Amino acid sequence: MNRDTKMNVNQTEPLKSYKKDFQYSYTLGAFPTIELIDGRPDTIRKVLIHTEYTDKEHVEQLCAKKNIPVEYNNKIIQKVSDKENCFVVGVFEKYQDELNKNLPHIVLVNPSNMGNLGTIIRTAVGFGIYDLAVITPCADIYNPKTVRSSMGALFRLRHQCFSTFEEYEKLYSNHEIFTFMLNKDKTLTLSECPKPELYSLVFGNEATGLPETFLNKGTSIMIPQSKDVDSLNLTIAVGIGTYAFSVGNGR
Amino acid sequence: MNRDTKMNVNQTEPLKSYKKDFQYSYTLGAFPTIELIDGRPDTIRKVLIHTEYTDKEHVEQLCAKKNIPVEYNNKIIQKVSDKENCFVVGVFEKYQDELNKNLPHIVLVNPSNMGNLGTIIRTAVGFGIYDLAVITPCADIYNPKTVRSSMGALFRLRHQCFSTFEEYEKLYSNHEIFTFMLNKDKTLTLSECPKPELYSLVFGNEATGLPETFLNKGTSIMIPQSKDVDSLNLTIAVGIGTYAFSVGNGR
Repeated sequence: MNRDTKMNVNQTEPLKSYKKDFQYSYTLGAFPTIELIDGRPDTIRKVLIHTEYTDKEHVEQLCAKKNIPVEYNNKIIQKVSDKENCFVVGVFEKYQDELNKNLPHIVLVNPSNMGNLGTIIRTAVGFGIYDLAVITPCADIYNPKTVRSSMGALFRLRHQCFSTFEEYEKLYSNHEIFTFMLNKDKTLTLSECPKPELYSLVFGNEATGLPETFLNKGTSIMIPQSKDVDSLNLTIAVGIGTYAFSVGNGR
Repeated sequence: MNRDTKMNVNQTEPLKSYKKDFQYSYTLGAFPTIELIDGRPDTIRKVLIHTEYTDKEHVEQLCAKKNIPVEYNNKIIQKVSDKENCFVVGVFEKYQDELNKNLPHIVLVNPSNMGNLGTIIRTAVGFGIYDLAVITPCADIYNPKTVRSSMGALFRLRHQCFSTFEEYEKLYSNHEIFTFMLNKDKTLTLSECPKPELYSLVFGNEATGLPETFLNKGTSIMIPQSKDVDSLNLTIAVGIGTYAFSVGNGR
């Protein structure tokens, strides 16, 4: 088998519906695929385009510029996208990042919902936070649903997974830690909170919040709210916390 | 047919999977049902409890206090809930409100996603905004999915539907209007924006934003954001806007 044949086999290997243990994942739709091509071109195996897609030339040009193979294959698109109206699919290798030690971070402890995780990524990038730590177990950051909710913003930030918060803390020990939770002894409200240059904003799981072990870490913050709701939605809490620390703080 | 028989017929009328044109709707799950019992008891036809629900007594007591009929009926619960793990269902009449003329409002123009609408309701109540105007066409505010996303906060606020914004504006003419959109001539960023006592925060559709006709209404506001995202998610924008005008403004 010569080199060309091998490459050919690689290109046409049967792509399947996404599963968490795959080495690769998909961007479903033109928008996240274009973000992928722009932000992480080196991870792309190929881009699939539907023959009925009306803006083929644009995607083809973007791919040509970065030497990314393009394939027209309606059958595979339908198979991997599980929905109608998906005309462009990116196939990309999963990757690992290290966070930037000199920039602020968001830390999500055990986020469980893929839509929330994607929305948080989109919001973080929107407010200029480009480093995200995720503590496992958590929602699959590479699931096409997460990628889609992020509107492709996943490819604009660095993310790193840790199996414990302590592991994260050890590696990024210069960051001032702010935990979004209630601490009876010393909780600051968001507006009276110090806003240093280098910070980690730490948020818990959608249903359970942060475990009590976080009570002795950094500074507890609460977002003031009425007694008529049990709590704020996680994505809203992250959005407001991030806004207040970044652009809302005049940055 | 005597009166007792009639009542019996009423109680056991066949409940169906929810449709938008129904006069009534459902709360699916104990949490939103308890919020319904607490916030809008007068609208409730009955509460259905699953025989395997572990906290029957609590719900029964709440209903007894307000003379709300309780029925044990696993079959109907399964039929109307379309999912497992739903143990309590509230059946309630849809209602109409008028907004409070002396309190701030949120105005949603053509919101299309039920999950977003529910999350926005939960967030509004969380920040002490108890009046919501919705401009049609829009997502069904009474769909059980919306109610569930609101975590029952729907029953904590007043909401009113209008077929045009002008209709709303005419009725609540003392409110200062803030439109969350970009206006090339005169857009204020959120942090430099005046924050009067009586205001309407106006947000557009998820995909299309506010129509251009809103450019000559009130004050345009933008939430500053990086160039690396196309826009913020609607729920995040409403969350941050509402936070900045209410509790984040020291209220």
